[in-house]
Amino acid sequence: MSATFELTKELIRLDSITPRDAGCQPLMIARLEALGFVVENMRFGDVDNFWARRGATGPVVCFAGHTDVVPTGPVERWDSHPFEPTVRDGHLFGRGAADMKASLAGFVTAIERFVAAHPDHQGSIALLITSDEEGVAHDGTVRVVDALEARGETIDYCIVGEPTSTDRLGDTIKNGRRGSLSGRLVVKGQQGHIAYPHLAKNPIHLLAPALTELVAEHWDDGNAYFPPTSWQVSNLNAGTGATNVIPGTAELKFNFRFSTEQTAETLKARVHEILDAHGLDYELEWALSGNPFITEPGTLTAAIGAAIEAVTGVTPELSTSGGTSDGRFIKRIAKELVEFGPINATIHKLNECIRVDDIEPLSRVYEETLARLLLD
Amino acid sequence: MSATFELTKELIRLDSITPRDAGCQPLMIARLEALGFVVENMRFGDVDNFWARRGATGPVVCFAGHTDVVPTGPVERWDSHPFEPTVRDGHLFGRGAADMKASLAGFVTAIERFVAAHPDHQGSIALLITSDEEGVAHDGTVRVVDALEARGETIDYCIVGEPTSTDRLGDTIKNGRRGSLSGRLVVKGQQGHIAYPHLAKNPIHLLAPALTELVAEHWDDGNAYFPPTSWQVSNLNAGTGATNVIPGTAELKFNFRFSTEQTAETLKARVHEILDAHGLDYELEWALSGNPFITEPGTLTAAIGAAIEAVTGVTPELSTSGGTSDGRFIKRIAKELVEFGPINATIHKLNECIRVDDIEPLSRVYEETLARLLLD
Ligand SMILES: [Zn+2]
Ligand SMILES: [Zn+2]
Repeated sequence: MSATFELTKELIRLDSITPRDAGCQPLMIARLEALGFVVENMRFGDVDNFWARRGATGPVVCFAGHTDVVPTGPVERWDSHPFEPTVRDGHLFGRGAADMKASLAGFVTAIERFVAAHPDHQGSIALLITSDEEGVAHDGTVRVVDALEARGETIDYCIVGEPTSTDRLGDTIKNGRRGSLSGRLVVKGQQGHIAYPHLAKNPIHLLAPALTELVAEHWDDGNAYFPPTSWQVSNLNAGTGATNVIPGTAELKFNFRFSTEQTAETLKARVHEILDAHGLDYELEWALSGNPFITEPGTLTAAIGAAIEAVTGVTPELSTSGGTSDGRFIKRIAKELVEFGPINATIHKLNECIRVDDIEPLSRVYEETLARLLLD
Repeated sequence: MSATFELTKELIRLDSITPRDAGCQPLMIARLEALGFVVENMRFGDVDNFWARRGATGPVVCFAGHTDVVPTGPVERWDSHPFEPTVRDGHLFGRGAADMKASLAGFVTAIERFVAAHPDHQGSIALLITSDEEGVAHDGTVRVVDALEARGETIDYCIVGEPTSTDRLGDTIKNGRRGSLSGRLVVKGQQGHIAYPHLAKNPIHLLAPALTELVAEHWDDGNAYFPPTSWQVSNLNAGTGATNVIPGTAELKFNFRFSTEQTAETLKARVHEILDAHGLDYELEWALSGNPFITEPGTLTAAIGAAIEAVTGVTPELSTSGGTSDGRFIKRIAKELVEFGPINATIHKLNECIRVDDIEPLSRVYEETLARLLLD
């Protein structure tokens, strides 16, 4: 079996449930140092991170990713142990198989082959690896980027190894992500007995027309890179449990996924405008998870697109759909940034897996991308 | 102190937390049997009830009420023990002081004085007493009424001793009650990740426009005896707790308080019409607590109104406001039914009390009402 397959299995055996690294980074670092990388461990709080670089000139091509995995869920409901990599029916099973230990292994073996063949490549190869992407992510990539930014370090082309493929390896590259803005709204009424509504103010009744307007609101049309901004309620709770009491407050939690047609400020202003137009007495706390970011088609998308076609025969589509990723932090110091990795159908689920036949091609895509960016 | 005051204290000392009678009914029965009443114990399930009657002819004047009380809440937050009747600042404190042990005592002493003065009164005096009015009320008044109805027994004038006065003893008689109809609505959507709303159906978003229409609906104008029908949501819950998940269902609990301009069926039909017009996929369970009932001004309201004015100097108003009462069951076999009792400001609360100076007049109102209905 291939070196990438073997290293993927080694990494899966290390039970790096977020934010534990569990030895994954030392394994990667040993192999990178053997290739002449200068490695900086950047531990923040309880979180292991590292920055590694080979070369002193530009362009800087950086592979980014995370060694931590989401919890396994009930181990007895897995068909094989989540930390015992197992091949069945052409798939390698294990927690992190697709998100994203095959990508990490693919980075390492791609670089090993590339450096062996082109020890005097142009520019630099870098890695930015964290063990806190799946958790609160306070001491992970964002802290490393802060440190790099503080000393003026920049990245020309960044490839994040998140699992972006949907049906076939290579079908989707993410060249950006929508922004994510959350809110917690508390509408205030006046508690009372349900038989005496004139002595109470029902916050559910007060909220209803404003909620209807928020649901119907057309925020924008999106643009060439982003679908229209969406607003969704995740939780709505009001009531004491008693069926004869009008509650005193109603709580609504919601989330925007927003395009570059908006900013957090334009969205906040419009929500307040709607709530105020309905005369509501309310409190509203906002939390910005990430602003939208985009890499327009250019050198990096062309290089990785050509690499994917050459290795897999698949023509990838650019997409900005899905959740947030650490790309939102790295983009601050990266001129161009894309995400590319294996099929994401089983990530965060029981029996997470990757097609065995996708593992080596994934590494070859990363290698071919390096070749297109760092060779004449 | 008066006989009514002493009997009220005796009843408060018996800790008849619903549905326990705790000896209240035997105390009343002993005194009624001494007056020549024929008493039928009607125990259903764990619930003590009795029906007592003195006289074989009509008209039948019936006093109705309950010996059970609501729980005390934290005893340490009472200024005196809830089952130790205590006088402070002109008030008698204790659980059940106002709801409705003073009324029970007032019934007994009113009848004692009336029978002593008029041993050969016309018609009949009856009592219908339960120990399950404050609880689920399945084995209380409704079962006694079923039994009486089955044998063709009817009541001409029924006086329920619920605490109906608001600011001064005598200011309010209830001559009916609104109906109460509850619903539990579950709107079905499709659970999904908040970043992929096109793969989910948000039940909160689906519900919002229908909820707005229900809140704005004008059900009726009420009539001479009833305020307009009101619809209130008591509980609205949707969401998994997670802020990145669109929930699969939303649950709404609501309650109608309705006038005689409606029936449960007209209300149900209109709600279904609104929900269906919005194309909702839903389940809706209904629970009818009671239909509205009314006693139009006539012999009984005239008699008790005159009795109140004679005893207290206050001119009572007729009202149908407030919650449900056992009157809804008794009205089935009673030609005329009103509710009258002490000030209800402290019922179901800590430090429940009744003005000491209201206790004897309450009994005298019941006595004067008997005189107006059973003497020439
Ligand atoms: Zn990941
Ligand atoms: Zn009561």
